Amino acid sequence: MTAEIWDVIIVGAGLSGLSAAYLLKKRNDKLRILILEGKDRVGGRTMSKEIPAWKGVDRWDFGGQWVGSTQTHIMELIKELGLEIYPQYNSGKKVHQIGGPDAKVRTYKTSIPTLSPLVLMDFTQFLWKIDRLCATVCVQDPSRTPNALELDSMTLHSYIEQHVWTRELKEEMELSSRAVFGMEPAQMSFLFFLMYAAAAGGVLALLENTPGSAQEFKVKVPTPLLCLDRLSQVHTTRLFLLIDVEWAKVKTATNTFLCRAVIVTCPPHLAAKIHYQPALPIQREYLTQNMPVGHMIKFIITYKTAFWRERGFSGEIVARPSSECPFCVTFDATSPSGNAALVGFIAAQQASQWSSRERRKAVVASLIKYLGPEAASFIHYEEKDWAKEDYSGGCPVNVMAPGLLTYYHPSLRKPCGRIHWAGTETATQWCGYMSGAVQAGQRAALEVLAELCPLTLTLEEQEALRHSQAANTPVERTTSSSQRSCLCRAAVIATLTVSAAFLLARNDIKWTEM
Amino acid sequence: MTAEIWDVIIVGAGLSGLSAAYLLKKRNDKLRILILEGKDRVGGRTMSKEIPAWKGVDRWDFGGQWVGSTQTHIMELIKELGLEIYPQYNSGKKVHQIGGPDAKVRTYKTSIPTLSPLVLMDFTQFLWKIDRLCATVCVQDPSRTPNALELDSMTLHSYIEQHVWTRELKEEMELSSRAVFGMEPAQMSFLFFLMYAAAAGGVLALLENTPGSAQEFKVKVPTPLLCLDRLSQVHTTRLFLLIDVEWAKVKTATNTFLCRAVIVTCPPHLAAKIHYQPALPIQREYLTQNMPVGHMIKFIITYKTAFWRERGFSGEIVARPSSECPFCVTFDATSPSGNAALVGFIAAQQASQWSSRERRKAVVASLIKYLGPEAASFIHYEEKDWAKEDYSGGCPVNVMAPGLLTYYHPSLRKPCGRIHWAGTETATQWCGYMSGAVQAGQRAALEVLAELCPLTLTLEEQEALRHSQAANTPVERTTSSSQRSCLCRAAVIATLTVSAAFLLARNDIKWTEM
Repeated sequence: MTAEIWDVIIVGAGLSGLSAAYLLKKRNDKLRILILEGKDRVGGRTMSKEIPAWKGVDRWDFGGQWVGSTQTHIMELIKELGLEIYPQYNSGKKVHQIGGPDAKVRTYKTSIPTLSPLVLMDFTQFLWKIDRLCATVCVQDPSRTPNALELDSMTLHSYIEQHVWTRELKEEMELSSRAVFGMEPAQMSFLFFLMYAAAAGGVLALLENTPGSAQEFKVKVPTPLLCLDRLSQVHTTRLFLLIDVEWAKVKTATNTFLCRAVIVTCPPHLAAKIHYQPALPIQREYLTQNMPVGHMIKFIITYKTAFWRERGFSGEIVARPSSECPFCVTFDATSPSGNAALVGFIAAQQASQWSSRERRKAVVASLIKYLGPEAASFIHYEEKDWAKEDYSGGCPVNVMAPGLLTYYHPSLRKPCGRIHWAGTETATQWCGYMSGAVQAGQRAALEVLAELCPLTLTLEEQEALRHSQAANTPVERTTSSSQRSCLCRAAVIATLTVSAAFLLARNDIKWTEM
Repeated sequence: MTAEIWDVIIVGAGLSGLSAAYLLKKRNDKLRILILEGKDRVGGRTMSKEIPAWKGVDRWDFGGQWVGSTQTHIMELIKELGLEIYPQYNSGKKVHQIGGPDAKVRTYKTSIPTLSPLVLMDFTQFLWKIDRLCATVCVQDPSRTPNALELDSMTLHSYIEQHVWTRELKEEMELSSRAVFGMEPAQMSFLFFLMYAAAAGGVLALLENTPGSAQEFKVKVPTPLLCLDRLSQVHTTRLFLLIDVEWAKVKTATNTFLCRAVIVTCPPHLAAKIHYQPALPIQREYLTQNMPVGHMIKFIITYKTAFWRERGFSGEIVARPSSECPFCVTFDATSPSGNAALVGFIAAQQASQWSSRERRKAVVASLIKYLGPEAASFIHYEEKDWAKEDYSGGCPVNVMAPGLLTYYHPSLRKPCGRIHWAGTETATQWCGYMSGAVQAGQRAALEVLAELCPLTLTLEEQEALRHSQAANTPVERTTSSSQRSCLCRAAVIATLTVSAAFLLARNDIKWTEM
């Protein structure tokens, strides 16, 4: 069997791989690039599908879907490709049921949930603490964070247990962990959580759909960047992948390819399944052994009309885990062409517990409970259990277990011979998001260009690469602006809390309840 | 390519795989058994090697080596195979340097290190707490342990931080974690630690070389059970393994084998590298994604005479991590034929930090410091970095990160289609030890026999299998005897502490120091 020869082989045709290919081609269109993909489609953890809707059929995203104005890497790409975005619908009442089995269903219209003054005070002090810690995290090299070892030696759960006073807020934080990572707070390092939040500009940015936050916009063409795949040859290969680190030889079950550089973009737990010859550095092996992926089931349910809007709801529901309600959060998902829909997420342990149960009935029953009886008359219910997707095995992101960041983090991005590492987990800005995938793909592409055709790099790019690869990276305070905004935010929330407590004491304000 | 047909295929020719084969053959010698192994040797994480010694050459174990009288599974096998054991040499002074960078080198002769009364009191209260918790752990199903979720949501590090008062004891516990698991306490679930200790009969059993504990005896023929490999055909296959779960088809890079049952014995992080068709249950995938293996470098250093014995030392050194001393613990390793040697371990972060440094000089310098200048005149220094061993990637055992036991533990032993799981990590008695490997191999073999030739099982065995596989296993208090012994032990230690404090107050006793 003679080996095919390529300049660059990219393993994984997700956003990171496609972005890498796109940049490589843009800088040097003579480069022969091959993308190897296990799935029979491109897009990785982004995926769209047509399903029955009020006006025939329409297309929805079943993977990554939101972008935000501070997500510069994906926003620039969207602009460059001439794609349109539109804001996440969030007018009207949000539904909220948190605080133990007997929690009341509450609604609120602000960005902060309707919480009792005590819980609000708890929220304020906790957010203050976390955001202050966030501001000290060096995303580029988290081991340089003050008290890194201590922060990385505890789980997010342990930190919550130690610093949150009220059951409501504990539940709220647990639910946030599930919704953001598809993981229970017990499964992740607290320092990893801080790094992740710092890479997004703060904790609230992860949770909200306000300007600059993670759920701000959607793209009009679902999973839009898939058009990138036309740029390179995508070879679908199932099973068995061997990478010869020294010779840059990539073997699949049926083919052998030779190349000058390899970019591995698949999530860490899948990168760990590849056989490398000779073995990768020990630190790299230990890292990928300890970065489990989240568990997320995403559903879209289509309706004739967005009846919730008519009832004054935004479509956003935040619900505590229970044996009746599988989802933790829903949002309005009405399509740009006006087909009414809701999107929801069944995450982490809820996903695991519900993975072999009939979910549709329970989802619809919960929607009826929270939004009204019209929820029963849906047109179509479609879902995607990402844990069951071959060559993904989970979604949305791989997290780090305690002890990883301080001990093995440097091997996350460090090239091994001719292998370069991409994928959203290796990003330093909006790590875990589509934007992070693009940033990581572009960074890996620049690394490869620096080796194969260095003249295509600008001086700034060369400098940035040197900086990111240097062992002794100076401590970066990537979130100093976030720290300032956090101080302002905390001050505002503190004022709000005191005012709320005062008003409550006066007994002339009634908390909105359904 | 026509597929070879076998009754049972065992993946991995370590102790677990060989024990499974041995039992299968013993019960039904007509069974056609094939063992697939990636290494070019059998033995897995046990391995012996001849190295230069005073009388020519001699053989030492570079992997698992100790057994104990309560390790019934391996002890019965040793008896059955007619092998001899001999006690670990532990007469004389033990050396101990713990308690911050300025810690003094102390020596002691009892089983409890020379500690100040405060540290001793701390040790007593901590051991009391841990052993009490240990006694509540259900090894068979740890999620049934009272407060399982809470105990599994924190790292061992977090528990130590919360419950240990003195720096000395913190260092002692950290060092124990490294020596036992090759892991930092930040990397493992506290519930996992408790389960592991409970499976051994208590925390002290893991650490000591007293009767019943982990380091009690050595076997005269190193890695003795390798003679088991003559029982079955061992096929060495490098790379790529695919198991078809439904058809029990096993593919390697070069062959395809059909069989009636598969026993996968390799450690979880390697079992995760195998491709399964169709994909394994989600819970199983999540489990193996989150069970990292320890990092251990073991060395043997041979001498003309056991000069330490002549100087009144036992050869046991317990040393805090430092930039000068790579090892955390050493023991006398003089061979049954009288060739003098020491064995030592470089573990966890120390192993990672020293993995690319010159270690021999630093080891010898430390031995000179602790045992005397004669340590300089060694005959041979030989070591084994298990993280660099193909098809092991680490040693001695895979641990569980927080959140695993409560959420995914049931899939640890639960067969998937025709696949059965063995390996010491699946044991319920002396999990992580050679004895656990044997127990797990035998249990998997019984599962296979129950399917292929059920009449070869005794009624008790059938009952035990049903019990271990039942979803609703009744809560077992496997360590109730350990609890009683713990109470006695704690009472003794408390008395000792008080006496020590009293004596110290009288100022007429001098603590032994070098």
